Amino acid sequence: MTHPNSNIETILITGGTGFAGSHLVDALLASGQKNIHVTSYGTETGHVGEILPSTQIHPLNLTDFEKTKELFEKVQPTQIYQLAALASVGSSFDQLDTVLSANTQIQLSVLSAAQEVCPQSRILSIGTALEYKPKETALKETDVLGPVNPYGVSKVTQEMLAHSFHRQHNLDVVFTRSFNHFGERQAPGFVVADFSLQVAKLTRSDSASKEISVGNLAAKRDFTYVKDIAQAYILLMDKGKTGEIYNVGSGITHSVEEVLQKLISLSGLNIRVTIDEKKFRPIDVPVVLADIEKIKKLGWKASTNIDEALKLTFNYYMNNY
Amino acid sequence: MTHPNSNIETILITGGTGFAGSHLVDALLASGQKNIHVTSYGTETGHVGEILPSTQIHPLNLTDFEKTKELFEKVQPTQIYQLAALASVGSSFDQLDTVLSANTQIQLSVLSAAQEVCPQSRILSIGTALEYKPKETALKETDVLGPVNPYGVSKVTQEMLAHSFHRQHNLDVVFTRSFNHFGERQAPGFVVADFSLQVAKLTRSDSASKEISVGNLAAKRDFTYVKDIAQAYILLMDKGKTGEIYNVGSGITHSVEEVLQKLISLSGLNIRVTIDEKKFRPIDVPVVLADIEKIKKLGWKASTNIDEALKLTFNYYMNNY
Repeated sequence: MTHPNSNIETILITGGTGFAGSHLVDALLASGQKNIHVTSYGTETGHVGEILPSTQIHPLNLTDFEKTKELFEKVQPTQIYQLAALASVGSSFDQLDTVLSANTQIQLSVLSAAQEVCPQSRILSIGTALEYKPKETALKETDVLGPVNPYGVSKVTQEMLAHSFHRQHNLDVVFTRSFNHFGERQAPGFVVADFSLQVAKLTRSDSASKEISVGNLAAKRDFTYVKDIAQAYILLMDKGKTGEIYNVGSGITHSVEEVLQKLISLSGLNIRVTIDEKKFRPIDVPVVLADIEKIKKLGWKASTNIDEALKLTFNYYMNNY
Repeated sequence: MTHPNSNIETILITGGTGFAGSHLVDALLASGQKNIHVTSYGTETGHVGEILPSTQIHPLNLTDFEKTKELFEKVQPTQIYQLAALASVGSSFDQLDTVLSANTQIQLSVLSAAQEVCPQSRILSIGTALEYKPKETALKETDVLGPVNPYGVSKVTQEMLAHSFHRQHNLDVVFTRSFNHFGERQAPGFVVADFSLQVAKLTRSDSASKEISVGNLAAKRDFTYVKDIAQAYILLMDKGKTGEIYNVGSGITHSVEEVLQKLISLSGLNIRVTIDEKKFRPIDVPVVLADIEKIKKLGWKASTNIDEALKLTFNYYMNNY
């Protein structure tokens, strides 16, 4: 899975101190890469601060094109993992506007800087399952797009913008549409992280009342362990076909209820689950499933089974919160 | 083609003083509508300034959400034709950023104002053939998107954003993907307007040298007369299915060369055509053709043949430039 010339690569991971970014740094270091630079938004570097020299961590607001270009000139990357994006924060006009314009500007900065500074570099542009118009069966890369929230819209925009640079300026871009992933260091707010944290807290609590209140448990999702996702990104950077989109997911679904029961069983406790309809989302897509034939042909599939991955995740929350 | 309750409609056309907008106002007035409001960007109102009372023309920068909302509160539209968008102006970072963010903000303003002020209104969101990933055969609404320039990207974003409001807030939105259109009052910069203007100028010029210098003539486009496009928009507002996308085009192609020869023949002159490779675009898609089965089923097809439409257009440029 390593590039034939991997020792001469200069790797830049935008958003590299984030959740998937930090696991990607782990994986690249493990594969022998040394020349890995990351951008961080703000000065919090978390796990990556412990594993990369500080000279390779660059606090940067990527919406600032001039500063982005300066960094590209300094680093001269040959591979760019474009992981940076703002997640959805609210539903007011101003907040929607912020997410949409920040994600557009981030992508435009990175693409423009690559075009001007290192037009031969290869870029992996990270998209999401949320770009698709939902359907109950497996989503193929050629399926119709139709995001149901502005975050999904902004990710479509990022993808289309990268596509236009690929077509118009011959930039070498490979695309993912990544499905749900989870694992150590994911921020609460995502379902597996949330549940793991709640169950871990109950496990350590002295209180006799062991109860967890949840929203819709029926939703089925295509969950993949984040370290498998990181391996997929490295593979796509090495072997992905330019201009092509690849679903990254496990190709199977588990219900949210199943995940919760597995976590409860890891805790060894007798936890009562109550359903709170207030926690239901206005639109909850019943099934999100990836068709992964395309990436499988490149030689990747998720190799960590869900029980093992949930155990690692649960242990992380037991030890860190 | 008129709505059963058309007399009670309050119509707002954003970007209504523009090219397609002005023909839409003509068509709505001709169908008996009176309560037609338009927004104009800046104070230039052109043709619409002559046919609508000034109280129904509202200078407005639609990227300003608060001002947009104020207008919606005043007008209380029941039908909104969302024609407003900035066209691509250049290729620098700042200009790309401007087009992308302006078109995103315009759409977000209009959708948010509709959601807050008139959530029962019907919105027609205007997209473009430039949203599609080019192919040589007829483009269907379910085909893969992949714009080759940032203007196309911004139109995908507008569409996806409207789709997300339709799904998340139940806004009643119908979508077009409109193919090339031409006719009176189109600004030079578009191929038919450009050629018409050049041939009209040569026709009136005293100079013995009758020569026209052009770029790639081989490209084939799906050209439709703008007044047919306006009828399509009115039909879709009345009968389009909510949440659905409709190609709007003629379903046939003509080469750019054919169009030029027809215009030259209208001039009655013997004009020499020279090819200037400098006028070739870096990427010129060879064929753009609409599959129009979907809108045909609603009862629309382009009814003006290209010879008649080119004659009307040529006469306009003869009389107005």
